[in-house]
Amino acid sequence: MKNKIINDPVHGFIQIPDGIIAELIAHPYFQRLRRIKQLGLTEFVYPGALHTRFHHAIGAMHLMHTALDTIAQKGTPITKQEKEAALIAILLHDIGHGPFSHALENSILENSMHEKLSLLLMQKLDDSFDGKLKLAIQIFENRYERKFFHQLVSSQLDTDRLDYLQRDCFFTGVSEGTIGGERIIKMLKVVDDQLLVEEKGVYSIEHFLNARRMMYWQVYLHKTTVSTEHMLIAIVKRARLLAQQGNTLFATPSFALFLEKSIRFQDFIKQETYLQAFLDLDDYDIWASIKVWQQHEDRILAMLCKMVLERKLFRTFIYKEKPQDTEIHKITENVKKHYQLTDKEIPFLLHQGIISNAAYQKSPQQQILIYKKNGDIVNIAQTSDLPTVHNLGIIVKKYFLSYPREVS
Amino acid sequence: MKNKIINDPVHGFIQIPDGIIAELIAHPYFQRLRRIKQLGLTEFVYPGALHTRFHHAIGAMHLMHTALDTIAQKGTPITKQEKEAALIAILLHDIGHGPFSHALENSILENSMHEKLSLLLMQKLDDSFDGKLKLAIQIFENRYERKFFHQLVSSQLDTDRLDYLQRDCFFTGVSEGTIGGERIIKMLKVVDDQLLVEEKGVYSIEHFLNARRMMYWQVYLHKTTVSTEHMLIAIVKRARLLAQQGNTLFATPSFALFLEKSIRFQDFIKQETYLQAFLDLDDYDIWASIKVWQQHEDRILAMLCKMVLERKLFRTFIYKEKPQDTEIHKITENVKKHYQLTDKEIPFLLHQGIISNAAYQKSPQQQILIYKKNGDIVNIAQTSDLPTVHNLGIIVKKYFLSYPREVS
Amino acid sequence: MKNKIINDPVHGFIQIPDGIIAELIAHPYFQRLRRIKQLGLTEFVYPGALHTRFHHAIGAMHLMHTALDTIAQKGTPITKQEKEAALIAILLHDIGHGPFSHALENSILENSMHEKLSLLLMQKLDDSFDGKLKLAIQIFENRYERKFFHQLVSSQLDTDRLDYLQRDCFFTGVSEGTIGGERIIKMLKVVDDQLLVEEKGVYSIEHFLNARRMMYWQVYLHKTTVSTEHMLIAIVKRARLLAQQGNTLFATPSFALFLEKSIRFQDFIKQETYLQAFLDLDDYDIWASIKVWQQHEDRILAMLCKMVLERKLFRTFIYKEKPQDTEIHKITENVKKHYQLTDKEIPFLLHQGIISNAAYQKSPQQQILIYKKNGDIVNIAQTSDLPTVHNLGIIVKKYFLSYPREVS
Amino acid sequence: MKNKIINDPVHGFIQIPDGIIAELIAHPYFQRLRRIKQLGLTEFVYPGALHTRFHHAIGAMHLMHTALDTIAQKGTPITKQEKEAALIAILLHDIGHGPFSHALENSILENSMHEKLSLLLMQKLDDSFDGKLKLAIQIFENRYERKFFHQLVSSQLDTDRLDYLQRDCFFTGVSEGTIGGERIIKMLKVVDDQLLVEEKGVYSIEHFLNARRMMYWQVYLHKTTVSTEHMLIAIVKRARLLAQQGNTLFATPSFALFLEKSIRFQDFIKQETYLQAFLDLDDYDIWASIKVWQQHEDRILAMLCKMVLERKLFRTFIYKEKPQDTEIHKITENVKKHYQLTDKEIPFLLHQGIISNAAYQKSPQQQILIYKKNGDIVNIAQTSDLPTVHNLGIIVKKYFLSYPREVS
Repeated sequence: MKNKIINDPVHGFIQIPDGIIAELIAHPYFQRLRRIKQLGLTEFVYPGALHTRFHHAIGAMHLMHTALDTIAQKGTPITKQEKEAALIAILLHDIGHGPFSHALENSILENSMHEKLSLLLMQKLDDSFDGKLKLAIQIFENRYERKFFHQLVSSQLDTDRLDYLQRDCFFTGVSEGTIGGERIIKMLKVVDDQLLVEEKGVYSIEHFLNARRMMYWQVYLHKTTVSTEHMLIAIVKRARLLAQQGNTLFATPSFALFLEKSIRFQDFIKQETYLQAFLDLDDYDIWASIKVWQQHEDRILAMLCKMVLERKLFRTFIYKEKPQDTEIHKITENVKKHYQLTDKEIPFLLHQGIISNAAYQKSPQQQILIYKKNGDIVNIAQTSDLPTVHNLGIIVKKYFLSYPREVS
Repeated sequence: MKNKIINDPVHGFIQIPDGIIAELIAHPYFQRLRRIKQLGLTEFVYPGALHTRFHHAIGAMHLMHTALDTIAQKGTPITKQEKEAALIAILLHDIGHGPFSHALENSILENSMHEKLSLLLMQKLDDSFDGKLKLAIQIFENRYERKFFHQLVSSQLDTDRLDYLQRDCFFTGVSEGTIGGERIIKMLKVVDDQLLVEEKGVYSIEHFLNARRMMYWQVYLHKTTVSTEHMLIAIVKRARLLAQQGNTLFATPSFALFLEKSIRFQDFIKQETYLQAFLDLDDYDIWASIKVWQQHEDRILAMLCKMVLERKLFRTFIYKEKPQDTEIHKITENVKKHYQLTDKEIPFLLHQGIISNAAYQKSPQQQILIYKKNGDIVNIAQTSDLPTVHNLGIIVKKYFLSYPREVS
Repeated sequence: MKNKIINDPVHGFIQIPDGIIAELIAHPYFQRLRRIKQLGLTEFVYPGALHTRFHHAIGAMHLMHTALDTIAQKGTPITKQEKEAALIAILLHDIGHGPFSHALENSILENSMHEKLSLLLMQKLDDSFDGKLKLAIQIFENRYERKFFHQLVSSQLDTDRLDYLQRDCFFTGVSEGTIGGERIIKMLKVVDDQLLVEEKGVYSIEHFLNARRMMYWQVYLHKTTVSTEHMLIAIVKRARLLAQQGNTLFATPSFALFLEKSIRFQDFIKQETYLQAFLDLDDYDIWASIKVWQQHEDRILAMLCKMVLERKLFRTFIYKEKPQDTEIHKITENVKKHYQLTDKEIPFLLHQGIISNAAYQKSPQQQILIYKKNGDIVNIAQTSDLPTVHNLGIIVKKYFLSYPREVS
Repeated sequence: MKNKIINDPVHGFIQIPDGIIAELIAHPYFQRLRRIKQLGLTEFVYPGALHTRFHHAIGAMHLMHTALDTIAQKGTPITKQEKEAALIAILLHDIGHGPFSHALENSILENSMHEKLSLLLMQKLDDSFDGKLKLAIQIFENRYERKFFHQLVSSQLDTDRLDYLQRDCFFTGVSEGTIGGERIIKMLKVVDDQLLVEEKGVYSIEHFLNARRMMYWQVYLHKTTVSTEHMLIAIVKRARLLAQQGNTLFATPSFALFLEKSIRFQDFIKQETYLQAFLDLDDYDIWASIKVWQQHEDRILAMLCKMVLERKLFRTFIYKEKPQDTEIHKITENVKKHYQLTDKEIPFLLHQGIISNAAYQKSPQQQILIYKKNGDIVNIAQTSDLPTVHNLGIIVKKYFLSYPREVS
């Protein structure tokens, strides 16, 4: 990281502060994020969506920088230490993500493991950097008394989602998701260490929440993405089953370890080699295996890999109500018959699940607060003239079912 | 490819015509381009530059569509067959590229092999599609009598570079490279089957040539990219040397084949399995190996791989004049001593070469022609008021030298 | 209009078709729109909002062009005559607007007079152009049997508002109003001569309606704009009162006519000179007078003019409920006392009124219809997953009150 | 100016510092710039080019703000007083412009009068603001010892042209003129109170100079703009001749004064009413008269006004060499005969002149200096690899001739 400026097509030039920030970015823990796509398999629907967690983390840090400058200019004092800590906290907030996080946490890792791992890795970095990450970790864990720092790292208006919404929108090309991140940041204000939005920014927030909801339906929960992700889960589960039955499977040593063993979070703490194996894992390991497994003698594994690689994706159905058991039964029989499957094999070729989306969480812990001109502070859902915000709180649930296109 | 519209952050919605175009895009030959980055290692300098040859080929097809519509509207008749053929020709113009083309053609493949392979693959597709690609191939090879179709596929104003300049600029974030592709296309005109630019478009062309030159210096020939590419070449050459000496090297079966054997273009024609191995190769094979080779017992291979993965890139020097032998000798000795290298090992850790850039080729075969209001047709370099275009024809050459940062 | 291409920062190059379209644009009726700002006094809040009705009309014509091409490509036949007529209808849809339409229709012209005048001027042009505008007028008046042409000129998805929303947003810089006009147009479809939106465009429409509602609150009904408009109404009413009392007032002859006489729509039909006077009127007449009237001996007129020119705008209050009579009474007394006004003078310095906004009209006549994949056609408000659209139909009303800042 | 944030479609949100900056913007001297278009008659070629000197001055101030922050961050101390003074200097740098400056300085005012007037008005403001503009005036006049402040106000890299190039490009829609203003500003550096550009910004500067040259040919010196401007000069000169012969001409009192008297710069200093008349003048006065003069009994005046209003512009010819006297004589006779003109009337209907353009001035006083990595400071024209910059210094001259389209 000799160059102190990074070119970001989303935010323009990003200045990298010298010292610990530049060193953390240069650290192998962080450089590996170059090899992990932010949106996993979304590229199958939006071919431009290839951006990485590396770029996102740096973008979020940039927004944190702008946010802190704005807040300070409006009269809230922020020390040099606090600023550095907040920048570190957002830079590392996703450091524990592995490749295809959601898919792997449904197949070879524990659920939500990336959150625990982020903290673990921050602690390890704190050790390497002579304890200089202590305040950053406090902010990350919401143990620091000035709450707005944590809110900028993790809340409904954090710089994480301000960056990813704008970035995902930029690279997918979905213009409905465009938000004015800069605009929102200029409207932030802190009173009593609480993050607020000035009243005149109320339409920008509403726009942001709407954009977020649309990105959920059009991108994050796009039925083809959901379906492809389940194909990947099925591939990894199948490979793992075969590996644990003693079959040979092409894989990098690190990926092989996860296929052969069942590793829990506790094991990472105890076994340094396990953690190292996890850190070696990225998108490349998974894809290299999938490419070789196309020729595997297990026809289910081979078929799934070939389908993904050639983009012969499953047919996917979305239902507003849970589909009837009889309907599912009928489809199950069709799939089973078409491929001559046993009952145990069926789940690899017939996927089901729930997807849901709530654009705004209005609970007291999570609400977005508006600072009115008269000094009052209110939940944005209570602000008048926003007939739509109230509705954004409704959780929309959908059911999906998917199986190979060949099945009639 | 069930969806007939592709979202492109560069050009907006791209409509995919039904029929053979949609089928070619769905073909495994074309889907593999999803796994090959357009700009190879440029992401080490511009982290957004992750776009693929897949997206570029579709973008270029979109521009071809617009160009043909414009030309037809100005009175040049274009048949349905010609249109389809031109779309196919540009869609497949790069189909023969492997991963990191330039690097592999300097290590395990022959020089410029991708050009021959593109033609070979088009012929194979012609066989699969009942001879429907004949006219496309004629256009591609410049054997069709209406020359402007080939000029739109390959010339100094082809839709290939109109797309890639705009796309590379978009994803890198280098705003100096921005061109108004649409603008230029609206200025195209055909007279006597020759591609011309209307006089009022002369500034747009000059701007385009300037942008192109800047992209060369700022992106394509950026010293860090050039240096990283030579590190990759060194890695593959080293791995190959080891493989041919009988060492075991982690690799997918396809990549292993290329490491172990010396395959020439003729072999692809004779041996179907060789061609299939090439088609199986993409960025993932290379990176998966590099990741594993970090632990290889050959210290040179391991060191190079680790450096690339952790972005500890070589220090690179650019010279306007070829550096003196005495200077090179001195540096060679330093590198040799620092790492205790034999003479045969030196080239893996000390790289040199030439980079050059000519923004405009003004030879009669390649010139850009301007259609003046009075009906005259002139080389753009002869147009008055463009003091700079003439100079764009000058070839600028530079020398580079790079070696590990650790060497004092 | 010798040049056939117009540069539009919003849509890029706009091609002007030769023949009657180019001639209509060159006609003095249309050229006068160069001198009438699209957003009147909005420039007092958004200094970039200086774009004219001329530019908007050409932009809307461009979108009509794109829309008709899209619809034709999807299989709905459109004749050359119909296409030309639709382009003319949208080009001239606002031809009857005078300067500051809303303000003048509240002071010296009848309400909604611009609509009748647009039709009258189209008929006059039809006479000059040998009856070539007949079909355009039929479409404009919704008398043509293929209803979708009129819907593209005037409906909740017409090319008029698709252009003005995008244009107003571009020039004001209010990014929340950004819509993907091109995106929506690509989703249009015609079944049984009815304009529909394909199901996959449902989020784009929702986004468009949201953007529209935000533009209302942030731009069209911005309290400062509303207040400045009422200052202008007061100026013109005051000037008129003075003129009709026999006072001398600086004005161009055309503006003077409107100050001195009460002209009704019928008079325009009977008296050619009245219509000519109207056509001579534009933003320049109004502003030239306001500038001179700063020095007028009537202190109310002079004061209002000076305030507008120096941007000492009234203080404005917005209420969700109609303010109490007692409150209004109290303010009235303050204003009266501060300026020593008579009861008849009060309305010039104390303004009140209602502003209201409904983003979506869901009545059967006006609804936006969605074409579902299974062939069903439904009102967008009935489409699931759009909790917000339903609410967009709610009419939000607000009350405002404004008076000079000097009044305590 | 109650709102402290101004929405700028070019730069986004612009923060207006409280205090003297906000007060100067609210001052009538500055508010009048709202009524003066930055690009005068360019709207006849680029209909979007309606932006005002008001918006440009605020944009330039914003860039000054960013530039000073960047320079300070790189280690050059800047006091609060210096910062405020620099902001004031750029905000007021064009305060002395009247409407259509170039045209009026060729007809009713002295040449380059706006420069003297800017200084005069700044001095008057200094009086009103208790001498708070002293340092700003020193910077403006280049009397302050830290030269880089003046260089940021007026030099080949000043924030004036960084703003206007970007703004003119935005509103005209000429994409070839796009510059990365932010990019250049981030590359600025000050050494020994001298403004420099860091070496890595060399391509951005070259791009900027190229963009500037293109804007000259495509916008500022567009032949239709030049020709329309000469029509306006002819109108004002003709009106003045008539006025001074005792004819009645419709005009605002201020404009009438300038038509009737010959006012020199010295008169503005002596006569307060003359200065006030100048300050009352803006685009509206000129256009209101032109509109009324269409009906004037002097057929030359009436004809010229009608032509401009209906956009029946002169035919214009551009020559690389000064046209031969015989040719000019022939055209003169044609025009004379066509309109039955006397020799004295000819100059109103036949215009000639020179336009010239040098994109880069490389003299020691004006050069752009590059700060090399090794600490050397060189003229950008000496930097290698920029074959084009050297040529940008060439002055290109052209001759034009224009007369009514009706003349055969």
